[in-house]
Parts: sequence; structure tokens; C-alpha cells
Amino acid sequence: MTVRAAVAGASGYAGGELLRLLIGHPEVEIGALTGNANAGQPLGGLQPHLPPLADRVLEPTTTEVLRGHDVVFLALPHGQSAAVARELGPDVLVVDCGADFRLRSAGDWERFYGSPHAGTWPYGLPELPGGRERLRSTKRIAVPGCYPTAVSLALFPAYAAGLAEPEAVVVAASGTSGAGKAAKPHLLGSEVMGSMSPYGVGGEHRHTPEMMQNLSAAAGEPVSVSFTPTLAPMPRGILATCSAKAKPGTTADDVRAAYEKALHDEPFVRLLPEGQWPATAAVYGSNAAQIQVALDTSAGRIIAISAIDNLTKGTAGGAVQSMNIALGLPEDLGLSTIGVAP
Amino acid sequence: MTVRAAVAGASGYAGGELLRLLIGHPEVEIGALTGNANAGQPLGGLQPHLPPLADRVLEPTTTEVLRGHDVVFLALPHGQSAAVARELGPDVLVVDCGADFRLRSAGDWERFYGSPHAGTWPYGLPELPGGRERLRSTKRIAVPGCYPTAVSLALFPAYAAGLAEPEAVVVAASGTSGAGKAAKPHLLGSEVMGSMSPYGVGGEHRHTPEMMQNLSAAAGEPVSVSFTPTLAPMPRGILATCSAKAKPGTTADDVRAAYEKALHDEPFVRLLPEGQWPATAAVYGSNAAQIQVALDTSAGRIIAISAIDNLTKGTAGGAVQSMNIALGLPEDLGLSTIGVAP
Amino acid sequence: MTVRAAVAGASGYAGGELLRLLIGHPEVEIGALTGNANAGQPLGGLQPHLPPLADRVLEPTTTEVLRGHDVVFLALPHGQSAAVARELGPDVLVVDCGADFRLRSAGDWERFYGSPHAGTWPYGLPELPGGRERLRSTKRIAVPGCYPTAVSLALFPAYAAGLAEPEAVVVAASGTSGAGKAAKPHLLGSEVMGSMSPYGVGGEHRHTPEMMQNLSAAAGEPVSVSFTPTLAPMPRGILATCSAKAKPGTTADDVRAAYEKALHDEPFVRLLPEGQWPATAAVYGSNAAQIQVALDTSAGRIIAISAIDNLTKGTAGGAVQSMNIALGLPEDLGLSTIGVAP
Amino acid sequence: MTVRAAVAGASGYAGGELLRLLIGHPEVEIGALTGNANAGQPLGGLQPHLPPLADRVLEPTTTEVLRGHDVVFLALPHGQSAAVARELGPDVLVVDCGADFRLRSAGDWERFYGSPHAGTWPYGLPELPGGRERLRSTKRIAVPGCYPTAVSLALFPAYAAGLAEPEAVVVAASGTSGAGKAAKPHLLGSEVMGSMSPYGVGGEHRHTPEMMQNLSAAAGEPVSVSFTPTLAPMPRGILATCSAKAKPGTTADDVRAAYEKALHDEPFVRLLPEGQWPATAAVYGSNAAQIQVALDTSAGRIIAISAIDNLTKGTAGGAVQSMNIALGLPEDLGLSTIGVAP
Repeated sequence: MTVRAAVAGASGYAGGELLRLLIGHPEVEIGALTGNANAGQPLGGLQPHLPPLADRVLEPTTTEVLRGHDVVFLALPHGQSAAVARELGPDVLVVDCGADFRLRSAGDWERFYGSPHAGTWPYGLPELPGGRERLRSTKRIAVPGCYPTAVSLALFPAYAAGLAEPEAVVVAASGTSGAGKAAKPHLLGSEVMGSMSPYGVGGEHRHTPEMMQNLSAAAGEPVSVSFTPTLAPMPRGILATCSAKAKPGTTADDVRAAYEKALHDEPFVRLLPEGQWPATAAVYGSNAAQIQVALDTSAGRIIAISAIDNLTKGTAGGAVQSMNIALGLPEDLGLSTIGVAP
Repeated sequence: MTVRAAVAGASGYAGGELLRLLIGHPEVEIGALTGNANAGQPLGGLQPHLPPLADRVLEPTTTEVLRGHDVVFLALPHGQSAAVARELGPDVLVVDCGADFRLRSAGDWERFYGSPHAGTWPYGLPELPGGRERLRSTKRIAVPGCYPTAVSLALFPAYAAGLAEPEAVVVAASGTSGAGKAAKPHLLGSEVMGSMSPYGVGGEHRHTPEMMQNLSAAAGEPVSVSFTPTLAPMPRGILATCSAKAKPGTTADDVRAAYEKALHDEPFVRLLPEGQWPATAAVYGSNAAQIQVALDTSAGRIIAISAIDNLTKGTAGGAVQSMNIALGLPEDLGLSTIGVAP
Repeated sequence: MTVRAAVAGASGYAGGELLRLLIGHPEVEIGALTGNANAGQPLGGLQPHLPPLADRVLEPTTTEVLRGHDVVFLALPHGQSAAVARELGPDVLVVDCGADFRLRSAGDWERFYGSPHAGTWPYGLPELPGGRERLRSTKRIAVPGCYPTAVSLALFPAYAAGLAEPEAVVVAASGTSGAGKAAKPHLLGSEVMGSMSPYGVGGEHRHTPEMMQNLSAAAGEPVSVSFTPTLAPMPRGILATCSAKAKPGTTADDVRAAYEKALHDEPFVRLLPEGQWPATAAVYGSNAAQIQVALDTSAGRIIAISAIDNLTKGTAGGAVQSMNIALGLPEDLGLSTIGVAP
Repeated sequence: MTVRAAVAGASGYAGGELLRLLIGHPEVEIGALTGNANAGQPLGGLQPHLPPLADRVLEPTTTEVLRGHDVVFLALPHGQSAAVARELGPDVLVVDCGADFRLRSAGDWERFYGSPHAGTWPYGLPELPGGRERLRSTKRIAVPGCYPTAVSLALFPAYAAGLAEPEAVVVAASGTSGAGKAAKPHLLGSEVMGSMSPYGVGGEHRHTPEMMQNLSAAAGEPVSVSFTPTLAPMPRGILATCSAKAKPGTTADDVRAAYEKALHDEPFVRLLPEGQWPATAAVYGSNAAQIQVALDTSAGRIIAISAIDNLTKGTAGGAVQSMNIALGLPEDLGLSTIGVAP
């Protein structure tokens, strides 16, 4: 089975990463590539790391251009996906890398995004309980946010096993590509190299309700998340340091056993051997997530740490993984757990 | 008053930063410089950023060499300071940048350092309640650890005002110079550039009891700290993201007022205007600490974030600041709040 | 003598660096600060590393605002300085960090900048032969470009001593702050971290005629320069690798002697001991230049390498150094040779 | 055809990169992995980016361990390959990533390496004139040095077409992985981040004779190379800025035509469209080389610039490419031109 895939928003970082993976996917043929401001330009100057597509010219993001594909990936700014998806019809697999269809609560959407809620699509994090079932044969996939991917993978085993109190504290460091390719002064190399800084502090970041949605579902009770994102001087990668109080009586063995059970068969999530800790460099450019967990008996907290590549497992790789499931292909087709290091 | 100062351990990062500051200190004349493996070498090849001292030759770290100075700075590996200090006599001001004399609890020392406790010296963090009084006219100063400096400055106002529950959660990112100049494979540029990784997770880091000591003193009750340090791809800087549950009834105005009151007159600690967040680049090479605080009403937590330069305010600058107080000099003599940015 | 200084263009990188130095200059009082798009904003959010000026509000760049100062520093885009300078009158010391008045040849100016030549001011590189004399008591100073500073300091001793053939080859790596603070996609942190890339290849860079002007003057004959600039993943610093064929009969001793003679008494330029090579980290934030030179006897070329901080010695520090000379102050007042390392 | 491959030196950077590529090579089965100091350790802690091999344990580098494979890759320190190769017998394909067999001149070897010359093997740079023919059916391959790969690809078209004078000037910037994984103080992250510095200046670098050998062969006359390597603050990548005087009468069209002709059919070397310049980020983790060339008519020089990943095209990828040719496999099997960017 060869599917023909279009990528809307091919000049950005998510679009470029989708193309990097799709070029190597044995069952995908790359169809239309679209851009907005960059329509009419060859891809070679915009994504110089993708020589096989250097001569492809970006088309405008219209229904006419996107029609006639088996799969359409949307890597568009928030709020633009609903209109495009509606026009594409129910037989096309639409994979939305934006936020529009991730949240189940319309109230959360409106509070964090300030616009009407477009709806909820099957959520593309196969590792969550019931995650794969939701994706089989679906024609619509909401790709998770990069932070929620890292945080949910780190904490869901503790919540699914009933080991953690429902108040999580998360501090995550992200590479700058998570902030996109639009030129803003605070994202200049001169500003970010040599600097760590927080943003969206105090529950303001839009990924917060998505994390709570995932962890609450795993826990079977409402879980709050205090989330602080920070910008780190690296192009890619998320390191999420997550913790929650352990429920009374929880032992280090309980914690280890819960994580081994939850992650044992996962093709892309690896619980590291005890004593080894995640590093974003080890998953650079790969679809892998590294996880480690510890029980801080003095503070009474479970500390779970994950490392992912925000553009791969955190966006484009996760999207391809979910597409594979939806299409009935092997889940790891065209994806790798091998990082580019050092 | 001109004081003659020696630096033991002048070839390392703390020693180099001490010299960078002392060269510009108007009341200090630089005396003996010592090293261990590097004794006999000129400083020019070891610290090429300090041309005024390029021709100075390192001497061995002996009592003979260090004797005859008004001030002796010790930038030695943990466990070596006690023997040196004992020989120097009670009239010399000894400023220890190592950990040996920071902890008041012998039990904590032994648990975290595995050796007999050498004692406790006046603690060199003037901003803490009673901090300056402890330092006036003292002849012995224990310079705080870099992480405890960042964390204590971020959280003591909340604890001193009785606004925070006594269980703090801290995730801090440090530049690599905090790990010292000894060549280890995991500190190679090839390994750290492009990577974030945690270490000493689960309460294992030796700076944890020092943070608890400071925050407990501010709170008037025992405060636990769940501390996760991470290594960031930058040479200098600490960004400490600290939080604790707010005590019932605490408002955002209470929090802001407590921080304004605690930090108002501080020459080196700046509570940023609301909406502006700390960045390590802004304090690069300076003795300043930037602080911001928020109340996450959804999660019910106070989030306090600090940025310092680990080598300046976090080590050598803090040492000079405390020396100034001990000697009766203006506290900011030879120190600056101005960072080197971008 | 206290002089009152204004800075036009205070929100950019050159303006910020001027302020960093002027705050610490014992004979300067900082007057008006101006910006264009940022007029009306407090400096604290624009230059967060300069807390002493955080509450100063930027004014528009007009003659009214700039009038009434003893010194006016212009850190404006190319082509805007002439109009401002004309209005300020002949008694004000105007220090132009832009390119407008650097070139002596109107033809070169027009070829590289595409606009009419505004004139030529005394050139602010005191280390060049006759450099200091040109600056004494002047009321107009053209601050050199950052690359020409690095390249001229590296090569003028060879040309002044008649040891090098008049065809120089220069490859220089610059930190990203040299490209300014205007947000452009190719300067994003995501793009520059982990990447080296050239630009302005083939003699196109506007600093090329300025280098040729300086080296030709030193040589007493026309010197061509093949110049390739590259963008390096660091915020600050220039490393210039410069070479030229040695004239027949030149020995390594001749070369060393020429450099020692030319640089011997310079307060800010240091010929490193043999075997030690320049590094940009060693001059980070300092007004120093590190120089080393070698004779490659196999290829018959003199290789001279310099490291400077592009914002300090390469722009703002050089400007203050020249101002000091023009005002009759000690040349090194408010300036330092000490870098912030590591 | 499936070949069984061993990697000697699997814990270093070259070894790790070989494994990253060989895991994905459809005709290679990975056999023994050896180390020296690390023998007995599992690979998971040494190369955490290679989870499929995490449980493989390193064996000592002995003939017994390496025997019985179809291909043996040697990623050993210089001088150790000859003894190993001798024992392996003439039927095993031995691919040496070290320097031992690269040079044809015993005199050059002895001058630069200070030991007896072990011999000369077919040189693994297929793109050079006659390069592929030399490799077909060979049982011994000398993988080129990373710098000679970058420089030879950039300049051989000019020399093969007789357009350049035989005196080349090269300044190249390398990521730190080129210096290996042995922990040395000057390679610490604290030292290299934010810094550019040269080393091996003045013709001292051991890759110089190898460049001269390649370019002289292309030119049909002896070509000298003045080579200055610099260390750049990035983990991977080489940007080589190469130039030589153009022979009289050479036009920009001549130069362009020569490069198009020489590189037209190359699967891994891409002459960029005019106006686009190489960037190391675009070839991160890929086996591609980006090349651009210009004629600086003012200085009369041909400027050729190349970007490669030093570990991929510069070492392990080049090794696999040559192995493919030697085994009669498609040259690009298991290799990619797609970089990981941003």
C-alpha cells in the first residue's frame, strides 16, 4: 500500500520534520506541499537539509491543492485547521499537528485559546491507555503538543498505577525550534545562546489543560499540573522534570514495577536502566522517548523525567506513528529510535 | 584600607572568577596564587582571560605560601579547607568557597559528604534574614553553594512571610562551569552542546540539605526540598524554578508584597517588574540575581524563579560581597549588577 | 572632567554595549538615550542586563534630544549619521559607530553602499600607525567596523614591516550579535546553533574596502583582501584567520620581531607567547585583542590570527577608547582587558 | 547478500557513528563490537543514542574477536590499525577510519606522525577522479580524514579543470566531535561554548599532506596547502573555506562549468544553486556535502566552500559509502543526503 500525502505548512519546522520523515517512509509518496507567505518558492532555499525535494515549489494552502491525497498533514497556525479539514471530506486521513482538536473540554479551549472550540479528534499518543484503539481506522488525528507528549509519557504510569497524588509539578526545558520559525527578537541566536529563561509561568501555557486531560484520564480522577516551561539554548529537545507526591505506602519497588509494566512493550518509549538518566542529545532526530523515575523518599515525591525530540516524537514523528496505526501499517514504519549523537 | 589577598586554587573556574573580580577591586592587592597539579606554571596559559596576571606563577598550596595575607580565599576541592584554615590563625579572614563549613548539622554533612564534619562558619548569603549581621567582623566565611544561593534567594521571601507550605519543589538548570574544570567525558563540549540532562535526582545532590537549612531558618519550621539539578548547554548561569503550595488564603497581592518587602533594598537582588521574567544571559558575569514570582491560582502554588551567574553571585561574587561586609567596606565594592549581554 | 554623553540607538546591541561600558566610566554621565521603534519604552525590558538604567525611557532620535551633550554616540543604521551629525554642531564630540564616515574613497563607498558618500572622519583605530595622532582633539570619530578591527590588528604589523606580499586572504568567524538585533529568520537561535555558514562571499562584504584601506596605508602600497566572513554559533566574538605570502627571505624571527615591535606598548592588543593561540572566549566582554602569528615555511605564508569581542573592541569599546583619546583622558579609562571566561 | 560487520573502537565517536549507520544498513548484520578501556561494559551507557544495541557488551580488541566477519571497521587511535589488519587476512574487507594507510609518501607520514609508514591502501573518496575504480573489489580501504574530505571535495573540480594556481589557502571550522571523546580540559563544554579558536596553525596539522596529495593528483602538478583548522562551538560539522588564485583568463562561467561537470552526477555532493551557501546544519547527520563556489574578481581568487558532517561524510558515512562500492552494493545503500535540521 502506497499512500499519497500532502503537507500543508511545509516551510516551517514541523513541516520540514514531517518531510524529513516522509521522504524515508517506504509506503508514502509525497504529494502537494503548501505554504502561505512562501508559496511559489522552491523548497531548496527554505529547507536546505532536504535535497531530494529541493526543486519542489510550494503551492498555496487551498482545498484544491490539498484534495486528491490519501493523507493530509496540517502544520498550520492554531485555528486554521478546522476550515481546511471540513473541505477535505471524511475519506481523507487528516493529521493535524496544531492544537485545534486536542482538547475535549470546550471551556478549556476557550479559556486558553480565546476562540470557539472546533471539536475533538482522536488523540495521537498511542502509548496512553487505550491510545492505540482510538487511532485504528480513524480518519482524523489530533497530534499532541510537544510538552504534553513529554509530560504524559513521564507521568501516566504513576497515575495509571494509582501511586501519585493528583497534583503534579512540571518544569520542562525546550529547544528553540518549539517556538517556531517566525522571526521574533527574543528567539534570535544572540538572545538564546548562553541563556535559560522561563515563559508562560503560573499556569498560563496552553499545553497545561492538555496535560491535565491526559493525566486525569490515566488517574481516573482530576489531576492538576503546575507547569513551567523554559527556553534552553539548543535547537531541539525537551527535558521534562515531573514530580508528584507519592501516595502513602508507595515504595521505590512499586514505582519501578509500575513503569516497567506500563512501558515494557512500547517500541518508542524506553525506561532506562536504573542509574542512567535521560538526555535530549540521545534522542536527537529520533522518535524515541527516554524515561527514568525515582522515589525521593526524603521529600516523599515520585520524580519522573523524560527526554524527547520536540520535533520528532513531540510533533512529526508522533504524527507519522499515529498515521501508521490509522492506516493499519506497522507502527514503526519509517521511524527510528536511534538518535544523532554526539 | 588595602588588603592583601591570596587565592588557593587559582587555576580552576572559581579561582579564575575570584581573580577576575579581585583585579578590579579597589581595596584589594592580589598576593599569592596557588594550585596543585598546576603549581609552577604561569597563569597566562591557564586563565588566558586575565592578562594582568599572565606572568604570575602558581605556587603550591601550603601554609607557608598562604601566610602573611589579610584575606585568603579557598577554592579547593571539598574536604581540604579545614586543614588549611586551621594553620592560618584566627586573625586572617578566610573565605571558603568549598562546602566544608556550610552546614550546621553534622549529621547532614556526614550523610551527604561521607566524612567527619569540620564545623560551621558564618554563612555568606547577606540577603537572608540576619545574614549581614552574621558576617560583620567575622574572620571565617562559608560561601554558599551556587544552587542554594539561587534557590534561597527565590524562596526565602515566601517562607519568611509565612505564605508557603513547607514542601518546596525545585528544578534548576546550571551552566557547565558549575561542574568544574576537571576533564570528564560527560562534560565534553560534544556531549553537552545541544543536550539537557538531569543528575543527582531524588534528593541525592549535596546542595539539598543546605537549601533546607536556609529555607527552614526563614520559615521557622522544617522545610523539605525536592531538588532536581539539570545540566544546560551554556558555560555559566543558573535558572532555578522553585515552587511550593501557597498557604490557604494567600493572594497574589500578598505574594508580591512579601517579595517587595524582602528584596526592596537589596543592592544585588532585583525583583523584576511584573510580566518580565529572569534570564541567565541578563546576569552573565554580574553579581546580580533576578527574581520573579507568581501565584498559580489554578494549581495553588507560588512559583518563584531566579537567575544568577553561578560563578559570580553563585560563588566568587558572593564571596567578595561577604568579604566586603566582614572588612567593613561598602558591600558592593568591586562588584557590579551589570551583565554581559547578548 | 565629567562629560555628558548621549547614545542614539540605545536599544540595539551596539547601543547596549556602549551603555554597559559608559555606566562604569568614571568621567562619563549618561544623558539622553534614544531609539526609533522603541521610543517611549523603558530600557529595562529592552536591555535587561543594565539594571542601573532600567527605568530610563527611550526618547526619539532627534536633534533636540541629542543637543546639549558633550559627546554623542551614534549607533544607527548606515546612512543616518550624516544628517544627525550636521545638526549637532562642531563643538560636540560625535562618535559614529556606523559605516558612514569610515572610507576615504567616495568610489568605494558608492560601490559598496549604493548611496552618496557623506565624507571621511578621523578613524578610530588608535593602534594603526599614526592612529592616535589622528584622534587627539578631534570632534568627529568614525569607529571602525568589527571585522576591519580584527583584521587590521592582525595584519598591519606584517605590512608595516614590509614582510608580506600585498594580497591578503582572510576568513573570519563572527558571533551572531554582529548581525544586529533585527529579527530575521536566518538569525534565529534554531538556525544558528550547531551551524557554521559563510555569507557575503567573493569580495561582497562591505567591510572589505575598509580592510584594504587600512592595510594599504600600513604597507605603503595597495593591498588586496580576499575576505570571507562566516557566522558562528556564539553570541559574541570574532576570530580572524589572516594570511599573506611572505616576501622572499622573510624568516620566522623577522615576523616575530615585527609583531613585538608593533604591539609592544599597546594597552589593549596582546601578542600571545609563542605556542598559545587566540580564543574568543578569552576576550569575552573585554576591550582586548589577542594576536598570534606564525610563518608557515612550507606554504611560504605568514598566518596572523586575532580574537576580539565584536561588540567591545570591535565596536563600543573601540569607540570609548577613541573618545578617551579625543578628550585627553587616559586611553584605558573605563575599559578592561579582562574577559569573562569560561 | 548480507555481510557481517565488526566495529573495533565502538565506544568512541567514529565507532558510534558507524553503528548508527550500520544498524540501518539493509545488507549489514552487526557482529562484534570492541573497545579498549571500556571492554566488558554494555553499549547502552556508552552510546545512549543507540537503543537497539544497548545490551551489547564490548569485547576487547583482539584478532580472535574480530575474526570471522566479512567486514571489519577499525576506529582506533592512529598507529594501531596495521597490526590488526595484518592478522585479519586478505579475504576480509578491512575499512580503516584511522590515518595509517592514507598517505602515499612514507616521508610525509614519518614527518607528520613520527613513526614508520605502514603502507598505502586504496583511498576512500569515491568522488575524486578515478576514486570509484580504486575501490571496486578492494579488500582494504583507507577512509580519508574529515578535513581532507571537506577540502578535497571543495577544490578538486577547480584543480582538475586547470583553473587554479597550485597554492591553496584553507581555513576550516570543525565541530568538537572531530577531536574525539577522550576527556581533555580544552574540549570541555565550558571552554568551547561561546569560543572559536585555531590550533595546529602554520602547516602543522596532520591532515595537510593528505590534502596536498589529493589536490596534486587532481591538478597533475604539486599543490601546496596553507591549512588552518579552528574549533567551533558545535558538536558536529565542518565548514571549509578554500581558495586559490585563478589562473589567468579564468571567468566565473569557467568556474561554474567546471564544478557542474565534476559534481553533476554525484549522489552525495551537491553544488548549490547560485546565491545559496553551504551551512553545516543542513548536512547534520547526513552523508551529503554541500558545495558552493565563486570567483572573487577583485582579488582574483576562486573561493570554494564546503559543508559536511565530520562524523558522517567525513568519517563513518564515507566509510560505508566506500564499503558499498567495494562490495558491489548500490553506493548509497544505508546512507542518506537528508540532514537533521534545524
